[in-house]
Amino acid sequence: MRYKDWFYEQQTENQRIGFRIKETIYSGYSKYQKIDVYETEEQGRMLTLDDLIMVSEKFEFVYHEMLTHIPLCVHTNPEKVLVIGGGDGGTVREILKHDEVKKAVLCEIDKEVIDKSKEYLPFTSSQLDNPKVDIRIQDGFKYLKDNKSKFDIILVDSTDPVGEGAKLFEKDFYQLCHDALSEDGMLVFQSESPFLHKDLIKDVFHQRLEQLFDISSLYLSFIPDYPMGMWSFGVGSKKYHPKNDLITEKADKIAKNTRYYNKDIHKACFALPNFVKELVD
Amino acid sequence: MRYKDWFYEQQTENQRIGFRIKETIYSGYSKYQKIDVYETEEQGRMLTLDDLIMVSEKFEFVYHEMLTHIPLCVHTNPEKVLVIGGGDGGTVREILKHDEVKKAVLCEIDKEVIDKSKEYLPFTSSQLDNPKVDIRIQDGFKYLKDNKSKFDIILVDSTDPVGEGAKLFEKDFYQLCHDALSEDGMLVFQSESPFLHKDLIKDVFHQRLEQLFDISSLYLSFIPDYPMGMWSFGVGSKKYHPKNDLITEKADKIAKNTRYYNKDIHKACFALPNFVKELVD
Repeated sequence: MRYKDWFYEQQTENQRIGFRIKETIYSGYSKYQKIDVYETEEQGRMLTLDDLIMVSEKFEFVYHEMLTHIPLCVHTNPEKVLVIGGGDGGTVREILKHDEVKKAVLCEIDKEVIDKSKEYLPFTSSQLDNPKVDIRIQDGFKYLKDNKSKFDIILVDSTDPVGEGAKLFEKDFYQLCHDALSEDGMLVFQSESPFLHKDLIKDVFHQRLEQLFDISSLYLSFIPDYPMGMWSFGVGSKKYHPKNDLITEKADKIAKNTRYYNKDIHKACFALPNFVKELVD
Repeated sequence: MRYKDWFYEQQTENQRIGFRIKETIYSGYSKYQKIDVYETEEQGRMLTLDDLIMVSEKFEFVYHEMLTHIPLCVHTNPEKVLVIGGGDGGTVREILKHDEVKKAVLCEIDKEVIDKSKEYLPFTSSQLDNPKVDIRIQDGFKYLKDNKSKFDIILVDSTDPVGEGAKLFEKDFYQLCHDALSEDGMLVFQSESPFLHKDLIKDVFHQRLEQLFDISSLYLSFIPDYPMGMWSFGVGSKKYHPKNDLITEKADKIAKNTRYYNKDIHKACFALPNFVKELVD
């Protein structure tokens, strides 16, 4: 919500964070959601969907690096990568740092997010016109159904589990992701904050991941753009262990071109505090 | 600041976080600062000093465990531990989980913080009347000067480097801490957020720690009570390496009685993202 020259994100009913706005760059509604782009005093450009912060210019690198490089530094040959959601382009930008990627499909339901990102968020959308990128404006369910056993890695770069985004936390969706992966494929998705969404994480882990994949895991990252600063990512994998099978040379190479990710972080992010361990043990 | 039934912490000039308040439990001024205790809807009881959040009932465990157990699970025989600041008592509570501690001195300049914590924050102040605890209402500088080579571990549980708290980030103070430690002593202090206080961390690390101690290090923790959710702790040590010399049996024993800390977290918290590594390399 806006109040005078501040934008407030309502993180829970009883908690909100506010940023002073220099200028509202864009404000409008797509078929699916409210889209705003602000120029903030503190975090640079900021994209919000339905008044929830998706990316800030200053801190988006953390989320995009941590979603992408964990699986891509583990899989021995990730040639085909699918991103579901992620219309701002930050995840695709990180994927293309890996030379072995031949094709990155971005399946985003809301064309407006892509268009506004191209127009106003050059720092995330910089690679969306790269010839390796195939943009599909389509519902993720439909695309997954039509593309069985196709992808080495699927990254679910979704919004919170409300509205249109809620479907991406349902069991059917994980089944479709599983089936769209090749036989050594890996799925990684953002799975909210353990400080706030304990039941969701438990459910997703035990009712989805563990039932569908040989290897399932959870890792954590500091993400200042999202509530509580601690964010989790779920992994479902058919062959590679997301921590133990780290290819150190790949991590070292990528870490020359990152601001957050490196091989120490890769190993460390799987260490879970007691209260998080309880959710997945 | 208060606005209607919300308390806002001004995290920077252009960023603030707000919590809905059920009730203001206490509000007053000590000789040193403004002290407030709120009953919040989301985080339970909350103590603020000069309108900055010090502890919340829901999340204080993270900060207090991570400040305390890292050094205490590394030092082979931490009999005497000094806390500077920390009047809420949370750090002392964690220290006393270690049976080998014979004496915990709490040196807090502001008696009001201790009194109000005893009255309104039973969850942190629960051990302040333990016979092992020696409370000194005194300036930390003075106490350190009078107690050379006395302590196995010193924990600096300070406020932010503004007002009275600023002195605790000056070189003189680190020298005094160094001199008050026994020959295998360890110093740990909260050192703000790498997302916000880069110059402070650089300075403290290179101009204080590295010059005074044989071993210096930085570790990180998710701390939802503090700005950006990522917090750092500095370590100066005369003998033990804070990561490599972890005594696993101690960590395992303590982790039966913690909600955040465990041996995996102990090792992982020293992994630094690239942008933090740059500050201390």
